[in-house]
Amino acid sequence: MERKSGLKWGQPVSYRVIYGDTDKAGVVYYANYLKLFEIGRTEWMRDILGKPYRELENSGILFPVVEVYVRYKAPAGYDDLLTIHTALKDISKVTLTFYYEIKRHDKILVTGNTKHAAADTTGKLTRIPKEISLGIKNL
Amino acid sequence: MERKSGLKWGQPVSYRVIYGDTDKAGVVYYANYLKLFEIGRTEWMRDILGKPYRELENSGILFPVVEVYVRYKAPAGYDDLLTIHTALKDISKVTLTFYYEIKRHDKILVTGNTKHAAADTTGKLTRIPKEISLGIKNL
Amino acid sequence: MERKSGLKWGQPVSYRVIYGDTDKAGVVYYANYLKLFEIGRTEWMRDILGKPYRELENSGILFPVVEVYVRYKAPAGYDDLLTIHTALKDISKVTLTFYYEIKRHDKILVTGNTKHAAADTTGKLTRIPKEISLGIKNL
Amino acid sequence: MERKSGLKWGQPVSYRVIYGDTDKAGVVYYANYLKLFEIGRTEWMRDILGKPYRELENSGILFPVVEVYVRYKAPAGYDDLLTIHTALKDISKVTLTFYYEIKRHDKILVTGNTKHAAADTTGKLTRIPKEISLGIKNL
Repeated sequence: MERKSGLKWGQPVSYRVIYGDTDKAGVVYYANYLKLFEIGRTEWMRDILGKPYRELENSGILFPVVEVYVRYKAPAGYDDLLTIHTALKDISKVTLTFYYEIKRHDKILVTGNTKHAAADTTGKLTRIPKEISLGIKNL
Repeated sequence: MERKSGLKWGQPVSYRVIYGDTDKAGVVYYANYLKLFEIGRTEWMRDILGKPYRELENSGILFPVVEVYVRYKAPAGYDDLLTIHTALKDISKVTLTFYYEIKRHDKILVTGNTKHAAADTTGKLTRIPKEISLGIKNL
Repeated sequence: MERKSGLKWGQPVSYRVIYGDTDKAGVVYYANYLKLFEIGRTEWMRDILGKPYRELENSGILFPVVEVYVRYKAPAGYDDLLTIHTALKDISKVTLTFYYEIKRHDKILVTGNTKHAAADTTGKLTRIPKEISLGIKNL
Repeated sequence: MERKSGLKWGQPVSYRVIYGDTDKAGVVYYANYLKLFEIGRTEWMRDILGKPYRELENSGILFPVVEVYVRYKAPAGYDDLLTIHTALKDISKVTLTFYYEIKRHDKILVTGNTKHAAADTTGKLTRIPKEISLGIKNL
């Protein structure tokens, strides 16, 4: 399913806001959207790449985050049923960039990007393995 | 204390990393730096503006976040003693932008910005009250 | 569905463990099970009581927690698919007590109780409204 | 400093409540007190035992939590300056039990216990090393 040229979208994932996600303003605390982004890209990998991130890790390749951008347009409230929409936005020899939209029904509440560098288990930056980059280019 | 032209720095704040901040990679989970940013700007307001954010809220003015950018340069680990350095980077008629550096000793681990819009208690965007903007310009 | 005398069980709820739930020991951080308990009792209320907690709040009745007990038998790991099993264990004139089991497949990893007191919106303790207590007794 | 027979108290630790700790009820979310307990026992170990938990880990001995009990007497609010009081309550051949009081000024808001089992790095339960248990008995 493609919605924007160049973006490879995964299946939306549902998330119900709990008390623990909110703050005293009655809305989701700003840091917690980064957890929703994680849920989104994990399920993207499982669904689209066909590999849980856990398996990538076990094979010795990690994708630590190097950059995050978030745009907060409207707040999500307690007990709201959100959907997390995740797309691969960009792939280079050493980085992956994901794009996210957090929605309540059709309304976009929050958008963002996360950029990840490929690294081995010692933390050393490395090239994205061919198996993964080819898999992604063939999507 | 000024370190860059145009930046109004507050006092650094110390933070000791706990287990609950880390993730299975053994380092601080990427969302948790946004809590450190909150600690930083809260203490900036208390120290530099001379007003706890709590008092601003009580007087009917809120500063919800509208944008966040984070750059992760190196990971912070368990039990690391970090310092949070916070500066006001920009002020417009309706927004405040803070800049942050998270350090371990002299090493910068993470940097970021948060942009906040002035709003009243109903969530309606509003001008930053003169009392605050003048106070900031006179820093 | 009853599995133990006196316990009124709701439908199990699934939860997939994310990186953000884990700590450097590679397992779910001990505080985060309390979020799973919240998910469990919220869905119990929605399903069994037929009232989202949000509606109870809106009608002026809150159930702040007064006591928590947790028994950690075995750790949950990253990407584990857990199920949260929630039962009402006890109801008095002023308190509700829930019992929880967190499982991976058939294995019980964590159990716990939370006890909640009925309060009005000012925080004053109050009797559980008849409408709710009768509804529960008729389950 | 002893305040109750049999309890070995450490120095109180200060903690300032942030937005990210609170929930939509305007008070600290119930799970977050377990992070304060962690801060308390970590500083207890550093101060009283003279060994950061990090060093115990590095020497191959872990203390995963097996049981938690929390009693919520009164809520802590945003920007409250809390103190975390931690004492060793009990030591057996294989477990340590800590007791906590979270206070605002002299008022006790929350109390609790955490029980920890000694384990090696594979997770296998083990005896508490003599060096530690003797150190504790001589306090």
